[in-house]
Amino acid sequence: MTSQSASPSMNPYDDMSPVAQAGYRARAAAAEIAPLPRAAKDDALLAMADALEVRTAEIVQANAEDVARAREAGTSESVVDRLTLTPERVRAIAADVRHVAALPDPVGEVVRGSTLPNGLDLRQVRVPLGVVGIVYEARPNVTVDAAALCLKAGNAVLLRGSSSAYASNTALVRVLRDAVGGAGLPADAVQLVPGESRDSARELMRARGLVDVLIPRGGASLIRTVVEESTVPVIETGTGNCHVYVDAQADLDMAVDILINSKAHRVSVCNAAETLLVHQDIAPSFLPRALDALAEAGVTVHGDERVLSYAEGSKATVVPATPEDWETEYLSYDIAVAVVDSLDAAVAHIRLWTSGHTEAIVTTSQAAARRFTQLVDSTTVAVNASTRFTDGGQFGFGAEIGISTQKLHARGPMGLPELTSTKYIVTGDGHIR
Amino acid sequence: MTSQSASPSMNPYDDMSPVAQAGYRARAAAAEIAPLPRAAKDDALLAMADALEVRTAEIVQANAEDVARAREAGTSESVVDRLTLTPERVRAIAADVRHVAALPDPVGEVVRGSTLPNGLDLRQVRVPLGVVGIVYEARPNVTVDAAALCLKAGNAVLLRGSSSAYASNTALVRVLRDAVGGAGLPADAVQLVPGESRDSARELMRARGLVDVLIPRGGASLIRTVVEESTVPVIETGTGNCHVYVDAQADLDMAVDILINSKAHRVSVCNAAETLLVHQDIAPSFLPRALDALAEAGVTVHGDERVLSYAEGSKATVVPATPEDWETEYLSYDIAVAVVDSLDAAVAHIRLWTSGHTEAIVTTSQAAARRFTQLVDSTTVAVNASTRFTDGGQFGFGAEIGISTQKLHARGPMGLPELTSTKYIVTGDGHIR
Repeated sequence: MTSQSASPSMNPYDDMSPVAQAGYRARAAAAEIAPLPRAAKDDALLAMADALEVRTAEIVQANAEDVARAREAGTSESVVDRLTLTPERVRAIAADVRHVAALPDPVGEVVRGSTLPNGLDLRQVRVPLGVVGIVYEARPNVTVDAAALCLKAGNAVLLRGSSSAYASNTALVRVLRDAVGGAGLPADAVQLVPGESRDSARELMRARGLVDVLIPRGGASLIRTVVEESTVPVIETGTGNCHVYVDAQADLDMAVDILINSKAHRVSVCNAAETLLVHQDIAPSFLPRALDALAEAGVTVHGDERVLSYAEGSKATVVPATPEDWETEYLSYDIAVAVVDSLDAAVAHIRLWTSGHTEAIVTTSQAAARRFTQLVDSTTVAVNASTRFTDGGQFGFGAEIGISTQKLHARGPMGLPELTSTKYIVTGDGHIR
Repeated sequence: MTSQSASPSMNPYDDMSPVAQAGYRARAAAAEIAPLPRAAKDDALLAMADALEVRTAEIVQANAEDVARAREAGTSESVVDRLTLTPERVRAIAADVRHVAALPDPVGEVVRGSTLPNGLDLRQVRVPLGVVGIVYEARPNVTVDAAALCLKAGNAVLLRGSSSAYASNTALVRVLRDAVGGAGLPADAVQLVPGESRDSARELMRARGLVDVLIPRGGASLIRTVVEESTVPVIETGTGNCHVYVDAQADLDMAVDILINSKAHRVSVCNAAETLLVHQDIAPSFLPRALDALAEAGVTVHGDERVLSYAEGSKATVVPATPEDWETEYLSYDIAVAVVDSLDAAVAHIRLWTSGHTEAIVTTSQAAARRFTQLVDSTTVAVNASTRFTDGGQFGFGAEIGISTQKLHARGPMGLPELTSTKYIVTGDGHIR
């Protein structure tokens, strides 16, 4: 335990709000852990994993309170399931922490370096961001994932989970802090933002100067709130209105496989496809097959007029699309489908409606693939591959703190390097201008 | 000229405010120039440079209006000087544009790439940011610099200069737009934000979704306003409360040279030193020499108590320092000076008061240099070198759009790569999960 964790009477932050206190403690902890070598951080991560396993009962018991409260409130079973921690799930979470410990340390990496003409040595090196705030929804595994990734990258983390998971998160953070402190690092590197009220979330969003970046993880409305209310810099994550475009020339089997995988492999995730665009030349041969395959996968089609003309004789449920369908992230067994006149019309449709997450083209034409990848401006453009590959794990990053859909700082799946900044070190022997 | 530049009656944006119109036109232009090859952008840049030279008289004449207005308003001669454009200065600005044309194109650079275990090819490539807004003060050369750098990186730019330079900026942007249009690119890639009022600046700061990033360039109060009022992501630039720390063991000649160069080489710039910290062990030998050298350079010393004790018998003007001195960016022939007990005390002083721009250590101790570079968290840490080297030109970047003092996206001098984002391109042959 560090001095920041001393008895309340010694607390130098007594006259501040609880959120501001947490912020100042996080800054102090961040300054302590920033220069630590990898081994010290990994020891703390392994201690965290061990503690999660040793104290599983305490965690599961706290979680049971949240689950009981959610059931009483009539929460849907799928949400209750995401909230629930079993001993097996806690073990899996601990295993993820060990996996983070095994990843290379991004801090200290020389991003660019040269000797300048005047003999000065210039090095741009990765350094921690400082204090990272995470605002997230029900899943308590995010508490541990975010803490582990932030600590590995030398950052202090302020966790602001859902009030529906408050007991679980409180228990998890207690266990993590004990482990971090036990490993000789400042426990304040991992903190739950105090208070369950909206005010405490708002105060976090306005803690410019204390918090270096806020990363919201959750549904579209959570992310919109954080983006609009924050004065702290925000990294927008996750909203995915992803498109699959089937070009005039395409392998029909491949197109069906990619469509079904993109849409129906897992419908609740941000890299699931929500709209299918079909070139008019291939529509007569592709659409009947696509509609049948979607029907088989249990997907309802929201089609434009040309798509509706293929509905007859199809097994598919096809309803007329409204303009809202083009911008909807269904996260369900629904898909919007339109026929387009050309590749450029598909690109125009995508540029108008996309959230900028992932768009796929299925084509046998090299020229079409090249033009699509040049003109589509989303975090990820997939050629003859499912939209489902946009993921830190799939990309080989070893871990993921979220998927940024903005253009500044990080874009696409964010791994450990995206949780860092850089600084320049200039070394001379008396150099002046 | 493109369709966006057609006659007003054809304008599809008629029902929007002038700033929103400019934003939509910029987005359309950005989409057009993003996929252009380097040669097309360089042709436009060279046309811009040629046009500046050919139409120098028109520019200088417009500038004379601004200068006359500034003189009437009693503006200081140093500000009038920064505002003034002479034929020689226009030629120098045109030469800078040609220099930007000669720099490598950051767009298309593969930042990272690999073949994943499943055979998917993953490439992270640089793409333009989109629409960049620049809010800046009197110097009209920024108009051309920013337009050239943004265009080179494939971005459209919205320029919001000072109202005191409105005639100059209007003339410059007219010349640049004609050149860009003449080279076959959309003229709307370069636009002056319409209106001289504060409202138009505020609307630009709130144009989230239209503008991808705002970069303020100018004094601390301008930057503070932009940071506080913007909903568009901002890159904070420029405030520099830079420190020189002279360690217990240091070459005294080198320390004096670095101090005087850092402070007095050019006092009005953000990488000039504003505070000197001296280790108590070296103070008796170093401070008398430092005070004399500062006096010779015409610098007034704002000293703490221990510094005042060295004032007697010195040629220097030494006044007592107040707490405000530690956080002041003087930008004048003034320096705050304190004696510190240790390297760690120097680091603590810096962490408390710095704006995070540049800090220098003068030391012969390898251990001290290492500890200082590890613990100081600023954009640039200089070892035995002047603070004045923190500059895109000095760092060999070929150009600089500003110096970011924030941790997200870019930190330190920003060159062309910092005016880009990235996207991932995933290529398979029917890959699904």
